[in-house]
Amino acid sequence: MLKIAILGVGTVGSSVINILQENKEIITARAGCEIVPAIGVVNNLNKKRNVNIELTDDIDAVLNDDSIDLIVELMGGIEKPYEVVKKALAKQIPVVTANKALLAYHRYELQDLAGDTPFEYEASVAGGIPIVNALREGLSANHIESIKGIMNGTCNYMLTKMINEDVNYDEILKEAQELGYAEADPTFDVGGFDAAHKLLILASIAYGIDAKPEDILIEGIQNISSYDIEFAKEFNYTIKLLTIAKKVGSEIQLRVHPVFISNNEMIAKVDGVMNGVSVIGDKVGETMYYGPGAGGDATASAVIANIIDIARKGKGSPMLGFERSLKQNLTLASSDSIETNYYLRLTVEDKPGVLAQIASVLSDKNISIEKMLQKPDKNDNAILLLSTHVCKEKDIKEALEELETLSYVSSKPAMIRIEA
Amino acid sequence: MLKIAILGVGTVGSSVINILQENKEIITARAGCEIVPAIGVVNNLNKKRNVNIELTDDIDAVLNDDSIDLIVELMGGIEKPYEVVKKALAKQIPVVTANKALLAYHRYELQDLAGDTPFEYEASVAGGIPIVNALREGLSANHIESIKGIMNGTCNYMLTKMINEDVNYDEILKEAQELGYAEADPTFDVGGFDAAHKLLILASIAYGIDAKPEDILIEGIQNISSYDIEFAKEFNYTIKLLTIAKKVGSEIQLRVHPVFISNNEMIAKVDGVMNGVSVIGDKVGETMYYGPGAGGDATASAVIANIIDIARKGKGSPMLGFERSLKQNLTLASSDSIETNYYLRLTVEDKPGVLAQIASVLSDKNISIEKMLQKPDKNDNAILLLSTHVCKEKDIKEALEELETLSYVSSKPAMIRIEA
Repeated sequence: MLKIAILGVGTVGSSVINILQENKEIITARAGCEIVPAIGVVNNLNKKRNVNIELTDDIDAVLNDDSIDLIVELMGGIEKPYEVVKKALAKQIPVVTANKALLAYHRYELQDLAGDTPFEYEASVAGGIPIVNALREGLSANHIESIKGIMNGTCNYMLTKMINEDVNYDEILKEAQELGYAEADPTFDVGGFDAAHKLLILASIAYGIDAKPEDILIEGIQNISSYDIEFAKEFNYTIKLLTIAKKVGSEIQLRVHPVFISNNEMIAKVDGVMNGVSVIGDKVGETMYYGPGAGGDATASAVIANIIDIARKGKGSPMLGFERSLKQNLTLASSDSIETNYYLRLTVEDKPGVLAQIASVLSDKNISIEKMLQKPDKNDNAILLLSTHVCKEKDIKEALEELETLSYVSSKPAMIRIEA
Repeated sequence: MLKIAILGVGTVGSSVINILQENKEIITARAGCEIVPAIGVVNNLNKKRNVNIELTDDIDAVLNDDSIDLIVELMGGIEKPYEVVKKALAKQIPVVTANKALLAYHRYELQDLAGDTPFEYEASVAGGIPIVNALREGLSANHIESIKGIMNGTCNYMLTKMINEDVNYDEILKEAQELGYAEADPTFDVGGFDAAHKLLILASIAYGIDAKPEDILIEGIQNISSYDIEFAKEFNYTIKLLTIAKKVGSEIQLRVHPVFISNNEMIAKVDGVMNGVSVIGDKVGETMYYGPGAGGDATASAVIANIIDIARKGKGSPMLGFERSLKQNLTLASSDSIETNYYLRLTVEDKPGVLAQIASVLSDKNISIEKMLQKPDKNDNAILLLSTHVCKEKDIKEALEELETLSYVSSKPAMIRIEA
């Protein structure tokens, strides 16, 4: 028998407790022993919860209870759960967490603290999709060339609706908030930060690289306009918030931003609230993983999978995938080193000579135009939508700065990367 | 250090040896010890092979060599490798295999023989996709409601070409044979037997159910006609060879056959030689796994992942996913119990009253028509293509038998199931 304490009995915590009780027979058979949710720890004992379990608000008593075999950390936040998990690991109590923010900031310290004590976190990335498992165990023979993920269901829901139903950003954000898909302050999701946390976890498994959210390029979807949608449709693209980890030489690019991506790519077919992660390994080629990235039961499915693994075999794989550290001399790439195709949206005065001058600014930076659409806006400006051949991010940035200074460019130009 | 012997140095065996050598540094770091391909066992020592390893044709010497820590079985066939693997397991030597036929027939005996000795087989199902890992570990908290797989790349390549490029079955089979995607005798692939082997392995992990290929419904793609393709296109379907494991009450349906499936389903988007497996769990919902189902390096990626897992932790999960057997009282369903929508293709004399009589045969069996297309063929017959509302397989079979006896039905009617 494995007695577990659940720290945090919200949506996911409740699902963990309920599934362990509902699917007890098959979980016991698969794990080899009964897994008993023994106690739940909450802040507010008076709040009504749909679970059949003893509750307490005394977290220290639980951490000091020697009958508890495993801690499930679902508290939210960063520093508070970090302190709690440290205490558990110091007592060699195995820990399972779904806390991506905790891992985005403290995964290497936690790996050191855990040592031979199991510490698992499948649910922290892409909810119910067993992507940690796939990357850490299933693809372990490969050098990872790239990881491309759709790992924020809120953004994907909004972008899918914007493309399929021609609704604009503000309308769909309001709808997502009403449906409970987006928070009152949606910045953490729509700004790309949630997805960035998940990316950093996968990047450690793939490359053994340490980085914090502050170290990487993060752009959100707040500025996607209906013109961008039109351009995408015209040229067989879709628009996704993509998390990208990519090895280029000895540099690792880690970035989160909206992209134009061809509808023919498998990852482009991941729509609505669903998540998908495409991984390219040097030997296996592309594999892709698809499923629900959020939701109580889906996330709990991943939490319980970790608990069953610990029941089966104790410490399984090394926490971040490497039994020994490997001197690969990999460094984090600067965003200036990105080379790709770019999409630009410019609002300009509709008069002769303007296009020639814009083309000239671009060509001075070695940027050549591949495709272009021109549309009038309601103020009689011309909206220029164009994509470039492959060029350097540094050159694009400089060109954008220069374009912004021109008198006939009437608002800040927008740029979206195109992912080949 | 883990010294391994590779039994069978063909496409996959060569890739296993080469990848262990090429990716040695990262594999050592991930596994925690060096994995050394020490010897390859072949039938013909004179055949040229692109590997840098000592070769022998003396398999018994290898099995009796106490310095060998792990056996990789890639011999092909069933009874010969079964004998070899039994000998290795009797000596408690861990075994990794990619041999789906061996497992389709002997997986439960092998589980018993292995006991606490690691016996792994990720590469036996869907090549480079870590689907055994996902189902056995990642989804272990769930009752599995269904598994739908595209697990034969030959068939999927052929069907994709037939749909996208309007080539017929015989042309595309010839092309697939020239490209090396199909064997001279293609029956094992196009007849559905290869996919059935893989399905049986996954069904054991999902349901703990034992069955042999002879026990289940297996139909191939040999009779798909260009009329079927036309019907699919007209009604937003594609045609796939699908492996299906589905729990209906206490019965498990295990079947392999072509299906019409909506283009909106994620699994329908798996095209060309690629494989995909969609799994629905009662808690997680749908997750889908996509990647290369064959090829030397992709398959070797899965073989080596198993070796690394064994190096990391010895015996990991229980071989077929259950630490303890579970009395679920699940039984194998008869194909008569299937209830779904059906597509029928009838070649009939083009004269008044015929359609009325056919409709009457169907309605006598409680079968009602949902959609219909009628086309003339070059012999001035009418080709009737129709789909039904949900009805019973038993009724469809009886209706087809009756239709075949009618004088104005000029060739054997064809039936393809529609997968909702």
